[in-house]
Amino acid sequence: MKILHDTRSSKYREPFGALGCNEPVTLRLETDEDFQGEAEIRLWLEDEEKIFRMKKLRGGFYEFSMVMPETPGHVWYYFILQQGHEVWYLGNNVKNRGGEGVVYATRPPSFQITVHDRFRVPLWFQNRIMYQIFPDSFCNGNPGGQVNNPKKDSFVYATWENLPFYHKDKNGNILSWGFFGGNLLGITSRLDHLKSLGVGVLYLNPIFEAASPHRYDTGDYLEIDGVLGTLEDFNRLILEAGKRGIAIILDGVFSHTGADSRYFNKKGTYPEPGAYNSPESPYFPWYTFTNYPEEYQCWWGVTDLPNVREMDKSYREFIYEGENSVIRTWMRRGVKGFRLDVADELPEDFIRGIRKAIEEEDPEGILIGEVWEDATNKVTYGQLRNYLEGDQLHSVMNYPLYQALLDFSLNSISSAEAGDILMSLYENYPLPAILSAMNLIGSHDKSRILTLLDQGNFQLARERLMMLAAFQMALPGVPSIYYGDEAGLEGGPDPDNRRPFPWGREDQEILSWYQRITGLRQSEFSDFLWQRPRVIQDGDFCLILCYSLEDRELWIAMNTHPSHPETLMLKSSLEGKTEGRELFHQLPVRQLSADETDSNPAEENRFSLEVPALKTAALLVAQSL
Amino acid sequence: MKILHDTRSSKYREPFGALGCNEPVTLRLETDEDFQGEAEIRLWLEDEEKIFRMKKLRGGFYEFSMVMPETPGHVWYYFILQQGHEVWYLGNNVKNRGGEGVVYATRPPSFQITVHDRFRVPLWFQNRIMYQIFPDSFCNGNPGGQVNNPKKDSFVYATWENLPFYHKDKNGNILSWGFFGGNLLGITSRLDHLKSLGVGVLYLNPIFEAASPHRYDTGDYLEIDGVLGTLEDFNRLILEAGKRGIAIILDGVFSHTGADSRYFNKKGTYPEPGAYNSPESPYFPWYTFTNYPEEYQCWWGVTDLPNVREMDKSYREFIYEGENSVIRTWMRRGVKGFRLDVADELPEDFIRGIRKAIEEEDPEGILIGEVWEDATNKVTYGQLRNYLEGDQLHSVMNYPLYQALLDFSLNSISSAEAGDILMSLYENYPLPAILSAMNLIGSHDKSRILTLLDQGNFQLARERLMMLAAFQMALPGVPSIYYGDEAGLEGGPDPDNRRPFPWGREDQEILSWYQRITGLRQSEFSDFLWQRPRVIQDGDFCLILCYSLEDRELWIAMNTHPSHPETLMLKSSLEGKTEGRELFHQLPVRQLSADETDSNPAEENRFSLEVPALKTAALLVAQSL
Repeated sequence: MKILHDTRSSKYREPFGALGCNEPVTLRLETDEDFQGEAEIRLWLEDEEKIFRMKKLRGGFYEFSMVMPETPGHVWYYFILQQGHEVWYLGNNVKNRGGEGVVYATRPPSFQITVHDRFRVPLWFQNRIMYQIFPDSFCNGNPGGQVNNPKKDSFVYATWENLPFYHKDKNGNILSWGFFGGNLLGITSRLDHLKSLGVGVLYLNPIFEAASPHRYDTGDYLEIDGVLGTLEDFNRLILEAGKRGIAIILDGVFSHTGADSRYFNKKGTYPEPGAYNSPESPYFPWYTFTNYPEEYQCWWGVTDLPNVREMDKSYREFIYEGENSVIRTWMRRGVKGFRLDVADELPEDFIRGIRKAIEEEDPEGILIGEVWEDATNKVTYGQLRNYLEGDQLHSVMNYPLYQALLDFSLNSISSAEAGDILMSLYENYPLPAILSAMNLIGSHDKSRILTLLDQGNFQLARERLMMLAAFQMALPGVPSIYYGDEAGLEGGPDPDNRRPFPWGREDQEILSWYQRITGLRQSEFSDFLWQRPRVIQDGDFCLILCYSLEDRELWIAMNTHPSHPETLMLKSSLEGKTEGRELFHQLPVRQLSADETDSNPAEENRFSLEVPALKTAALLVAQSL
Repeated sequence: MKILHDTRSSKYREPFGALGCNEPVTLRLETDEDFQGEAEIRLWLEDEEKIFRMKKLRGGFYEFSMVMPETPGHVWYYFILQQGHEVWYLGNNVKNRGGEGVVYATRPPSFQITVHDRFRVPLWFQNRIMYQIFPDSFCNGNPGGQVNNPKKDSFVYATWENLPFYHKDKNGNILSWGFFGGNLLGITSRLDHLKSLGVGVLYLNPIFEAASPHRYDTGDYLEIDGVLGTLEDFNRLILEAGKRGIAIILDGVFSHTGADSRYFNKKGTYPEPGAYNSPESPYFPWYTFTNYPEEYQCWWGVTDLPNVREMDKSYREFIYEGENSVIRTWMRRGVKGFRLDVADELPEDFIRGIRKAIEEEDPEGILIGEVWEDATNKVTYGQLRNYLEGDQLHSVMNYPLYQALLDFSLNSISSAEAGDILMSLYENYPLPAILSAMNLIGSHDKSRILTLLDQGNFQLARERLMMLAAFQMALPGVPSIYYGDEAGLEGGPDPDNRRPFPWGREDQEILSWYQRITGLRQSEFSDFLWQRPRVIQDGDFCLILCYSLEDRELWIAMNTHPSHPETLMLKSSLEGKTEGRELFHQLPVRQLSADETDSNPAEENRFSLEVPALKTAALLVAQSL
């Protein structure tokens, strides 16, 4: 028996995608025309189950209309059909990706409608190009290359060309930290490099005082780390970045502090007693000791990183509520927002509080979250969370997209699967979240993309990287360049993914390519990127995006086959006389003549485009004057 | 039945100790007066066994006189006694230490007489105080503390207070080297510190170009390592040391080179092809490849250290024979000699060639060898070697003494055992070798002496160190101070024994003590040290040395008992009126009056001295005017 529903088709669900509170939606189901039974919709919303009978339309269709609840979250639904003794359920696929429904004999997974409450993102941030810097490894701006204020018990790599490593004991505990000594002056000195890539947002991994080179073990939230420089250096960076239209986002690491911090003070580095030193310490309530002082809750068992009780009043006061709180202090010092480390481990109200403080200081401030899955329906610690309800995050690190594009580039998944993942995000995320998602293909937490793309043939890996980066630059959202990826930097897992930027040794072909594709994003693509593209697959190896404006269309086609070119027949919806040109590689584009097509040549325009193996092509079709 | 021989008693052997070629010796055996059998001496000399009948004297004594062979080496002997069907053998103890003979029923171990051919050591070197510096960790003389010419793939400890460590893979291979960046300028800047310790010889661990901080992996024998500075810095060090009467000895590492060297060039660091790169390389004959180029003979399996074929003509030419050979070049640049690394692994003729080259450049030049056992009878690679024959080493690192003193300090062996080891060396070594032996209590190859002496009570360890160092300074030979031992530096096995010198954080009590004992060595002790002292034990915990001059005696007593003082009754051989005073601690000394002694007060002088636990006392007895 036919039972159809497709979350992505306006025939069955309208409007598409995430909805605001109180927004109406219409859901439809299609059955065989001669189906005589009944159809019900089963809803789960606001923690309640509701079942409604659906209205029967002509042609085997059933319909149900509703408005979204007044509070954000989710609406979950599936369908129940009954005829005599027979019952069918139509629900989401087992991967919960939406799209076409699946018939089950028992209660099925539900379809999701994301409900947000006026989810907005400041316009300046949407679609900007981001650049991520791991400060220790980016650039040392000191004239002689000396390292500022080397830390006790640490070491310094002797040359900028060294490979980073961890000095660990047999149990894997770090014994001493290695530094390259990159600093803020160095970043400032390289802003024009960022500018040449069209960068508009600079995301800095932690820069506050800490013992390690990654600085996720915060020692003092209100100080610039001495190796990086001074507050003056920071002010200069803000100033010089501002002159170039580059906004700066800091890493906010608030789920734990360093053990060697002003707050915990396990090593006695700081003069005043910390929680570890005395229960009288003002910071004592921030931590959870199971056996004072040696046993305490810490991040993933890493004793260097004691967890904090985020909702402790004095902690909240210190981080965001207080007049001179961490968030407010740095916002006033000129940053445009924060990226929240391990957002999963932060209470929702804590995130809300930070968001509020950011916006009070700067209505255009931005809050990005580290979330590794679909941010609208992540289950963390037994709780279903939607970070995109409207009052939490503006943006998330788009790791689901990252994984899909990586897998697709390596032919581990087909274009259909990759497209499905992309559509699932487009469906679940509010449009401004799509336009603000941090579309990364590399970060400090992943092996270098060039290394991941290398399956034994480095030349192919370089081509895959250029193919993938071009596709990244043609997606809506905030494409993020992890420092050095544009220079062909390689590296395995942490810390090898944090090698120093190869100044003077850049892979010139890759670098020129990045300059070209970021340039195209800003010139030719920018008008198109404010919409969700159509996602189309062609065969297993070709994924196509299609953007439409009134007088123009942009087709982006990535061919991941390692050796076979793909010939695409693209049908434009533009009317009248059109012409097409390929933007990335100046590939030949052939417009099919009327006698080559089987339809009315006046009604459509068809183009044939051959996409070479491991290339992304960009076909711009425009009405010709 | 009584059968007696004692190598250390002139009653049985005369003269004492090692002998020159063609020197006579008389050996005696004592039996019961009524013994009626025959006595023979069995000799092994010049690879031949010889048995001689001994001349019977009165009172049960038998005697045999002979002259030493014309070529240096050893004479080995034991005794055979026969009476009727009964046979007794009198030979060396099973530890081969000499002293009182032991009766055996079968062929016994032989007594040793070391035979040398005019074994001489330049006078300037004998009894001088030596200071050993591991250059990377001693002192950075650059004003800002920056490190000169940091090496590719190495790292630099961020502060001078860091603890050194090795960055190894799971198989124990070094992945990258860590440097503190000590340099020659730093050494020059601290020469006055050495002078305050009475230092007259400075032994530098390797300073030639190499990849590692220990530099035993020589990269270029003719270049100063760039981290250490320039040839100009070296010249200045020689000049400034010379002004202070400090001679410099370099480390000569000739049994292997670095793989990353101008000669082997495994990493391609050097422009010209090395042995690894091409069989046409002039250095190819230096190495032994078992499977070219990846498999080759190397030092203890360390592939970083390919062994050389020392007797290869071009290698000998390069190291010492050639007009501009390594040895000659550095001697001309002002060094006073070399310490030969792993002398065991060098052919005798190679050592002889180096010795000859040194003396051709400077008749007062010195050659010291790294030998871990008795250097007169070490069996190495199946060959019995005597490094002290006269044309090889002048001096050896005195590790047997080191071990005996360490064990005795920790009460692992008794004073009798310690004294026995000392006497065994005194017996086997020519006197100039005793006066030139490098009497170390620490080196770059041992855990720090302070750490070894620490059995859980650091205060006791400090006292043991001061006791032991005082005894060291009262021994004949060249006492060697391993940099930092005088400052109370601690450290476990390599590389922890190479921690940076704690400038500004010295243990002031230990440092003052070193200044005091080295001062006493140069003032009060110096006249005494040209002889072998008598070695006396008192109980299990007290070891006493006694030196005699015509009008003075020096008694050195070390009490290793951790808590009990020892009251010594010392009988001076001086005649007439004498007086005694204790030099190290100003301990009270009591001269016993005539009625306290049971002998003629005119004939002897007796002194009572209480040596506190873990102290070395020095009693100077002098005829009073």
